[in-house]
Amino acid sequence: MTVIPLSESKDPRAKLALERLNQLKSQLNLSPSSMSRQAPKDMAKERAAAEFNIEELAKFWAGGDEKYRLLQKAYEIIKNDPELVVQPPRNFLELSRDEMREFTMGQIYRVFHVVKDTKDKDLAYEIARATSMYSESFSMRFFVHEMLFRNVINMLGNKEQQDRYNDDISNYRIFGCFAMTELGHSSALREIETTATYDFATDEFILDTPTITGTKWWIGMAAQTATHAVVIAQTIIGGKNVGLNWFVVQLRNKHTGELEPNVQIGDIGEKVGHAGVDNGWIQFRQKRIPRIDMLAKWAQLDRQGNYKPAPNPAVMYATLIPERLSLVTVTTQMISQALTIATRYGVVRRQGAKNQQIMDYQSHYVKIIPAIAFIYMVRSTADVLNEHFDISTAGGKMDPMVYLNHMGDMHAMSACLKGLTGWYSSEILETCRRSCGGHAYSAYNAIGHIIGDWGVMTTGGGDNVVLLQQTTRYLLYRLEQKLEFDEYPDLKFKSSTIYIKDAKRYLENKRWLTNDASDCIKDFTKLTEALHTILVKRLYSIHTARQQGTPSDELLLDSVRVAEMHCATFMFNVCAEKFGQPVGTPGIEPSVLAIMKKLTALWGMHVLYTYSDQGFKEGYFTPEHIKSIEKTYTDMCKSLRHQVIGLTDGFGIPDFVLKAPIAKYDGDIYQTYFDTLLIAPRSTGIPPYHGKYIKPLTERENPNALKK
Amino acid sequence: MTVIPLSESKDPRAKLALERLNQLKSQLNLSPSSMSRQAPKDMAKERAAAEFNIEELAKFWAGGDEKYRLLQKAYEIIKNDPELVVQPPRNFLELSRDEMREFTMGQIYRVFHVVKDTKDKDLAYEIARATSMYSESFSMRFFVHEMLFRNVINMLGNKEQQDRYNDDISNYRIFGCFAMTELGHSSALREIETTATYDFATDEFILDTPTITGTKWWIGMAAQTATHAVVIAQTIIGGKNVGLNWFVVQLRNKHTGELEPNVQIGDIGEKVGHAGVDNGWIQFRQKRIPRIDMLAKWAQLDRQGNYKPAPNPAVMYATLIPERLSLVTVTTQMISQALTIATRYGVVRRQGAKNQQIMDYQSHYVKIIPAIAFIYMVRSTADVLNEHFDISTAGGKMDPMVYLNHMGDMHAMSACLKGLTGWYSSEILETCRRSCGGHAYSAYNAIGHIIGDWGVMTTGGGDNVVLLQQTTRYLLYRLEQKLEFDEYPDLKFKSSTIYIKDAKRYLENKRWLTNDASDCIKDFTKLTEALHTILVKRLYSIHTARQQGTPSDELLLDSVRVAEMHCATFMFNVCAEKFGQPVGTPGIEPSVLAIMKKLTALWGMHVLYTYSDQGFKEGYFTPEHIKSIEKTYTDMCKSLRHQVIGLTDGFGIPDFVLKAPIAKYDGDIYQTYFDTLLIAPRSTGIPPYHGKYIKPLTERENPNALKK
Repeated sequence: MTVIPLSESKDPRAKLALERLNQLKSQLNLSPSSMSRQAPKDMAKERAAAEFNIEELAKFWAGGDEKYRLLQKAYEIIKNDPELVVQPPRNFLELSRDEMREFTMGQIYRVFHVVKDTKDKDLAYEIARATSMYSESFSMRFFVHEMLFRNVINMLGNKEQQDRYNDDISNYRIFGCFAMTELGHSSALREIETTATYDFATDEFILDTPTITGTKWWIGMAAQTATHAVVIAQTIIGGKNVGLNWFVVQLRNKHTGELEPNVQIGDIGEKVGHAGVDNGWIQFRQKRIPRIDMLAKWAQLDRQGNYKPAPNPAVMYATLIPERLSLVTVTTQMISQALTIATRYGVVRRQGAKNQQIMDYQSHYVKIIPAIAFIYMVRSTADVLNEHFDISTAGGKMDPMVYLNHMGDMHAMSACLKGLTGWYSSEILETCRRSCGGHAYSAYNAIGHIIGDWGVMTTGGGDNVVLLQQTTRYLLYRLEQKLEFDEYPDLKFKSSTIYIKDAKRYLENKRWLTNDASDCIKDFTKLTEALHTILVKRLYSIHTARQQGTPSDELLLDSVRVAEMHCATFMFNVCAEKFGQPVGTPGIEPSVLAIMKKLTALWGMHVLYTYSDQGFKEGYFTPEHIKSIEKTYTDMCKSLRHQVIGLTDGFGIPDFVLKAPIAKYDGDIYQTYFDTLLIAPRSTGIPPYHGKYIKPLTERENPNALKK
Repeated sequence: MTVIPLSESKDPRAKLALERLNQLKSQLNLSPSSMSRQAPKDMAKERAAAEFNIEELAKFWAGGDEKYRLLQKAYEIIKNDPELVVQPPRNFLELSRDEMREFTMGQIYRVFHVVKDTKDKDLAYEIARATSMYSESFSMRFFVHEMLFRNVINMLGNKEQQDRYNDDISNYRIFGCFAMTELGHSSALREIETTATYDFATDEFILDTPTITGTKWWIGMAAQTATHAVVIAQTIIGGKNVGLNWFVVQLRNKHTGELEPNVQIGDIGEKVGHAGVDNGWIQFRQKRIPRIDMLAKWAQLDRQGNYKPAPNPAVMYATLIPERLSLVTVTTQMISQALTIATRYGVVRRQGAKNQQIMDYQSHYVKIIPAIAFIYMVRSTADVLNEHFDISTAGGKMDPMVYLNHMGDMHAMSACLKGLTGWYSSEILETCRRSCGGHAYSAYNAIGHIIGDWGVMTTGGGDNVVLLQQTTRYLLYRLEQKLEFDEYPDLKFKSSTIYIKDAKRYLENKRWLTNDASDCIKDFTKLTEALHTILVKRLYSIHTARQQGTPSDELLLDSVRVAEMHCATFMFNVCAEKFGQPVGTPGIEPSVLAIMKKLTALWGMHVLYTYSDQGFKEGYFTPEHIKSIEKTYTDMCKSLRHQVIGLTDGFGIPDFVLKAPIAKYDGDIYQTYFDTLLIAPRSTGIPPYHGKYIKPLTERENPNALKK
């Protein structure tokens, strides 16, 4: 059987495919070997070795018992719905760009109807989540409309504008896209070229693309779907550029799909991933829109041409914060899948039946286990940051002053979290790929597809180097405030930089006082002390270098590394607080809390280990410290070696979502993998070009042939 | 214009496409911006800044003046040959799997004829090389037959067998594949399941696939092309397994392409890259072949059933050494392209016309420049190792004892070179991808395609961890020989481990005596001293840990890192010897020698910097050393910042081979990039599924619509 058995497929071609498959199989030797027999046994043994209740962990991961129940139900619903999940003999991982575009739009259409027909709104939400787990193209296309477009309207539009659009957005009477990036401009938004010039005579804005590099580029949903866009443009009033604003522009006729006059749109074409997302380019040729379509919560223009700018130009980018935080959701969606695949393969694969499981190699588990811990840590960190975001936006109501006060911390944290998560996740994906050996090179084992989709996360939504540098700039600002004025701001939530309050004390620390790094496992405060000391010392070194005239570009690599470490430490702090409580604390099942505590300790050690060079550079660590940290870290990984199946089962991802035969839940991978190949198009037979290119060469007789 | 202008295309569809393109363009605003005008100026300025003669460097890179001339000619020949290079409006980067399979076989067919028709055999060679540069699928498919298959026949077959096959191989009357890997077995060759049982009665071997996991898997050229295979199998004689041997097996009828009786073959299907290579699986069902098709240079079986085993079972894997060394060629082919793309984009891209070139960011050039140096170092190292290989195989004649004496070093070096090159190259590719920002996510900018193709290099041909561990095992063996017996073997070439001769002296070094790391630039012996000291100390630490009973698996990560460092140091040593000579030395143009000397110094510092943690772990480096190394390293990168265009121009890769519009030689990237999108299939218009999935939603009126 394939991952979804052909016999259960809702595809009309399945019956014929099954007959053909059985015929092929009758010609093959598919007897199990000692290896293939061993695999399911290994899997069962690994699963039994979990020292925690796996189902409880899965419930915790899903967000509670009820959400878990609904998500399971949602998976059951979508699994056999041919408009949501590709049914065999077709394979999702083999769809062409055109097929993916259509299938993904079909998913949106279908989800809309399923959600509309479902009385249970919580279940409806889980159906969208389950579909997002199944297809990142769906997730992205859905997200562009549901989040990016909607957020801009709601965070930057006034009440009237929100009312004008929200009902149509929710009911998909319009589809929106988010037109920010241009061919020539991404990270430097101030350089955006598109203009919106106010025409006093007609009370309209004229949107225009002045040059080739001002073409809006990469705009998701623009190429084929969107009826509307929110567009960021330089606002020209009375001949003067008053800065950036967002405008709502209709792109297409809602009935015919034809482009609106003065709008030119085309497709970005073939991409590395996200084939189902119709990224497009947009040009405006003197396109007129009414004044009331300039989003006006923060900046306003009246009929008389009086322009009132936003209290701070940065609010125009406020929507970038939830965009970045959403990357975290994508991380948990995608990286958890790659880790599940690599982990399952890692415990069932042996190099010959008598050899050890490949997961038993140090090089294997020391990479995989901290990555698993990371995903759990990211999840908890995201909860806290989303909470902070809700506090600073008052649940969407957004008092400008409150928001601006808190924006610094939110911006810095969302920036470094995107940077760290983006980069570390791509490292994890590469680890997962290598962990599956050659079999990750088969498209059918899904990891290549995940890597393709992931690509955009490290380069879209702001360059990570720029983002991390911004975080460090903020940290330096806080440090300088503290050192020069002994000031520290008050926020409505606990700032990520709170440790800077004690900067002076940290700077006085000379050598690390902990001789045996394993003491840190028992006492998180020891870890915190070391991490904060290193961070403050590194920040202070950068600060000093700047004071002494080192150009900031020459401090770029140092700055990036500090920002990463700040983020990783913040994650540790959040989880240490959350999971540091004694086992038995209500609200979290004891075995789940116990394993989370271990993962937190491992993560803390991972940070200490990864950034130990920073400690060494500051003279805080000796070679003995370094060796002790390394030993503790690898020992901890080893001690968690047999928890890997439980931990990845905790992500609760069904086989049909993972798609990879080598990651089958039951460990019986080889037959499924082989079947997947056998039902693929043109899996056997003479290639169509045989007569053209092969036969003319091979049919020739060798004039000098030796007699046999 | 596109990279190959439509007006020059040999595709019959080009004329219509050009008309359509011009019509589309007439509707768009394609005025240049200050940014797009600046780009070619930046490129010209960067090119002029080269402190060496770029053409001389390109000649050096190509392997001499004559080779350079022929390669240029070859590029001109293939550029407008529609069977070798995809002509617009089709785009190589958009071909489907089926199209790639056919096109790639067409290239082989065409190259065969071009080569046959060309009197100039050197030019013929360069045509194959140019085509390999253009398509890695071609390169791989060509390599499987020309190298893997042929090498096995020649290195493991006796004279009669060589005579029997070589002429057919050279004339493509047969196509060969290399059937080693099985579904369940790759790195542990001893566990291979396929059996070859001698049938005394008929004087035949019976090849058989005993179980599902014994299916030959990933076999390149097996799915659609190969008429023959060399197959490694357990040899059973008189009921006894006498070990592994290689067998030649006919797979398909040379006239019809039909499978031979008792052979089952299918396609591996969709892969992450190499769509043009027909990887397949093979099962033998009691397939009979004559005894004389067991390759018999080393092991022989006579008609009486007397089996004479090879002098050392390791010779059966001898062909893996040239296979690994060939990875180096692939590296120079593929990574040089990605680096050229990232570098060219890096110097023409600014975040707005007034901002700096992105290449000016420290985070950018500190990653890109050492990577460029690496490629030049790899090239020279490969020359030396190929020379070693020729010495130890006596140019193919292979005296068994000589070969066995030298095999240790060859094996260790090919193993660690594959490990280091594979991993570092994938890191470089990721750097290149990120360096191009979002535009690397467009398939048309080629980096995604290169990454897809590269994937197999880090997982195929032996797991890198296993390979690097083998190298360390060899290094430890040498160290122990030296320390215990004060012995050091004599080889016909300079062993990579020669520094171990002085192990005792290195072990006595306490602290690094160089206080200012920049001294190393002037005096390579200082660098060598530091690198060798660290290597010997690390090896000794591992040796000691083993003596004290640490299980070898717990030393795996340490072992891998030492092997990497050994390899990187060897590369430095090779190049220091080659380029350390005074400028003016005959045989190498002075400005080329000068820049190579700088790249060698940079590479040496890169190794010191990258493995500085190994030095501080051993107490050899102080924090001040670390800071000095870091400063010297980043300063050196900065000093080479304006050489990047000259250095990548030195690879001499034409635009049509690079394919990426953002990497145009003249720097005029934006218009070309836009045109590439415009001529792509379905670049504009209403999608076919509009009526099915979009219109039904968007055409609905909002019942509560506010009056406008």
